Amino acid sequence: MTATLANRAGKIAPFYVMELLNRAKQLEAAGRDIIHMEIGEPDFPTPQPVVDAALQQLNTGDIKYTPAAGLPELRQHIAGYYLQKYNVRVDKRRIFITPGASGAFLLALAASINPGDELIIADPCYPCNSNFMHLFDGAAKAIPVDAATNYQLTDERIKAHWQAQSKGVLIASPSNPTGTLIDADMLRRCIQAVDDLGGVFFSDEIYHGLVYDKDAATALVFSDKVFVINSFSKYFGMTGWRIGWLIAPDAYVETAEKLAQNIFIATPTLSQYAALAAFNDHTQAELERRKLEFSHRRDFLYQSLLRLGFDIPAKPEGAFYIYANCANFTEDSYRFAYALLEAEGVAVTPGIDFGSFKAKEYLRFAYTTSIDRMTEAIDRLERFIKKEEIHHANKFNVSARVKSKAGE
Amino acid sequence: MTATLANRAGKIAPFYVMELLNRAKQLEAAGRDIIHMEIGEPDFPTPQPVVDAALQQLNTGDIKYTPAAGLPELRQHIAGYYLQKYNVRVDKRRIFITPGASGAFLLALAASINPGDELIIADPCYPCNSNFMHLFDGAAKAIPVDAATNYQLTDERIKAHWQAQSKGVLIASPSNPTGTLIDADMLRRCIQAVDDLGGVFFSDEIYHGLVYDKDAATALVFSDKVFVINSFSKYFGMTGWRIGWLIAPDAYVETAEKLAQNIFIATPTLSQYAALAAFNDHTQAELERRKLEFSHRRDFLYQSLLRLGFDIPAKPEGAFYIYANCANFTEDSYRFAYALLEAEGVAVTPGIDFGSFKAKEYLRFAYTTSIDRMTEAIDRLERFIKKEEIHHANKFNVSARVKSKAGE
Repeated sequence: MTATLANRAGKIAPFYVMELLNRAKQLEAAGRDIIHMEIGEPDFPTPQPVVDAALQQLNTGDIKYTPAAGLPELRQHIAGYYLQKYNVRVDKRRIFITPGASGAFLLALAASINPGDELIIADPCYPCNSNFMHLFDGAAKAIPVDAATNYQLTDERIKAHWQAQSKGVLIASPSNPTGTLIDADMLRRCIQAVDDLGGVFFSDEIYHGLVYDKDAATALVFSDKVFVINSFSKYFGMTGWRIGWLIAPDAYVETAEKLAQNIFIATPTLSQYAALAAFNDHTQAELERRKLEFSHRRDFLYQSLLRLGFDIPAKPEGAFYIYANCANFTEDSYRFAYALLEAEGVAVTPGIDFGSFKAKEYLRFAYTTSIDRMTEAIDRLERFIKKEEIHHANKFNVSARVKSKAGE
Repeated sequence: MTATLANRAGKIAPFYVMELLNRAKQLEAAGRDIIHMEIGEPDFPTPQPVVDAALQQLNTGDIKYTPAAGLPELRQHIAGYYLQKYNVRVDKRRIFITPGASGAFLLALAASINPGDELIIADPCYPCNSNFMHLFDGAAKAIPVDAATNYQLTDERIKAHWQAQSKGVLIASPSNPTGTLIDADMLRRCIQAVDDLGGVFFSDEIYHGLVYDKDAATALVFSDKVFVINSFSKYFGMTGWRIGWLIAPDAYVETAEKLAQNIFIATPTLSQYAALAAFNDHTQAELERRKLEFSHRRDFLYQSLLRLGFDIPAKPEGAFYIYANCANFTEDSYRFAYALLEAEGVAVTPGIDFGSFKAKEYLRFAYTTSIDRMTEAIDRLERFIKKEEIHHANKFNVSARVKSKAGE
């Protein structure tokens, strides 16, 4: 049989970090000590009350399908969480429990995107977002952003880049890879701009909860006509459980329900019972302790990278990433990351995984490991940079000479 | 904000049985005893060794992301299962662990379907299959099938219905809703026909294992260039765990890997650890006992429905469904199902959920409940039919007279 791949197959890039990860595993298998700062997954275990809730359900042996939109009690808990945390009322009809934020994106885009549609996103941005658009034979239009706007879109940018094929706008705050927030008033203005343009607004809020110096605003405060994507993976520490949620505008509820029935049948049952314990006081107290630990790590890593000569144009305020400019050390952050892994056993993610705008100048460091390990990583990084500087200096002179010759 | 739903929203029909289910819940809440024969989910709990494997992993607290394609050990187990059960070798690279068979369909179609493509399927057929095609802005071309071909497609039908926009063929054996199998040699011929036509072949084998009088053939025996979709839900009794698998042809492996990374990140971790115990001797012994119980139920229900005057043109050989013709009692099986629920508290699924070919003449009965409960259901059904027959006779005379008058 002839293989005839879908056209989208050629449009979806693999994650470059996967090559690094595979190499890291080889090195580990050969006995090398690797410090993982490439992983977008909290190192903390699932909170004990959440594990206990799963154990309780597991012991009943009753792990049947739930309703497609999720356990009514869990949807109610989430509605309660929005009321308590953001002082916003959300009808639980609009809340869909999904297999991770991935499932929430899938549902939201399946309900709204036609082939040829474009979604405006920031560059840099989490790579799956553009790939989800390819799934529906649409495309992402990535708008370069930098520290001047906290690596976030603005209402003016949105208006300037809106075209006939534009269907909507996605804003992720805190952002992966930059950890930066959109200002609440700017979020409101962006939503208004998209509304004026007749588009659909998607708010990726999966790192909400992991915000250190101020609170992040939910788009729901400004409009009940937006899609909000959230997850139990990051703040709630439930990555491997694959559970998140979507809040859909009223007009999309019926469609999202039909799609969920067909695409998922339902979100994993045990994960839903486990998540029922995610909002209780014991869990919340534990999560707040972890958040404090993340903020200490953020401060440590931020200061350390600056000291080594990395440039961090906008201080990250949330998530667990620092997007650091490494142009002082290299012209190609992917090669830098690969060489760092080989030489010193420190794994980080190259900028090209998040877009193309100055991507070769950036590395993403995840502080999903302890300060002790990061201290060791910083020592290794310092040693690596010094060696590289010597090497680079030599190489640079050579290549500068070559260039200069070629330019003549 | 104006809601602008994707075009596919209008193409995806809701499951009609959902309305019945909602009504059944209302009746149950009001204290009525409802016998559920509409549910496509085994009534048995998850096998204990599978639960135990999940408990063991849960107690470690380590519920992190797995690789996108799944735990290597589980992929190896599945390869071993194919060797042992079907005597066919499958490279584990080609095996993807997915969030249910739903995830396997999503991956297979995302890798191969472009907008406008058509997939040839049988009518009647599991409704999600056509809806998955709408997800990718393709369409299902449903070919009427009946007892003459065991409710399965044939190579001749495939050739006769193949058109420019045809991209592939899906065969589900055992079939939902009919429980019928495709003959092994016909499966081989269908694969050959699709190969000759330059199409893609998808084999839905999610009810494998639940086959009572003979063995079902896997498409992999005849070709390693086909997609095979399977699941831990049905035979293995793991519905709520949302875990299945896809076997992809070699040429699609790289694309499926990228898609899995982007669409799922990974299948739920606990479900994967649990499934590691699905192939051990204790679990298999328990599953074979359950299979025997299903076969007794099948025999009981088959004989009972025939006795009541239902027509079952092809004896079901697998899955846990009987697709019974009720034209002796009604001209509209949906209305019949609704009235049966109201009058006697027996829930079954109307034919229109599975296609349009003679759908109003059929009901799907699921034997996912005990023989004791089915005995009670058959008593109620008998009482209902007798009352309906009197009513129908009266009504028929009236409408026959009206028709006759109108015809004059």
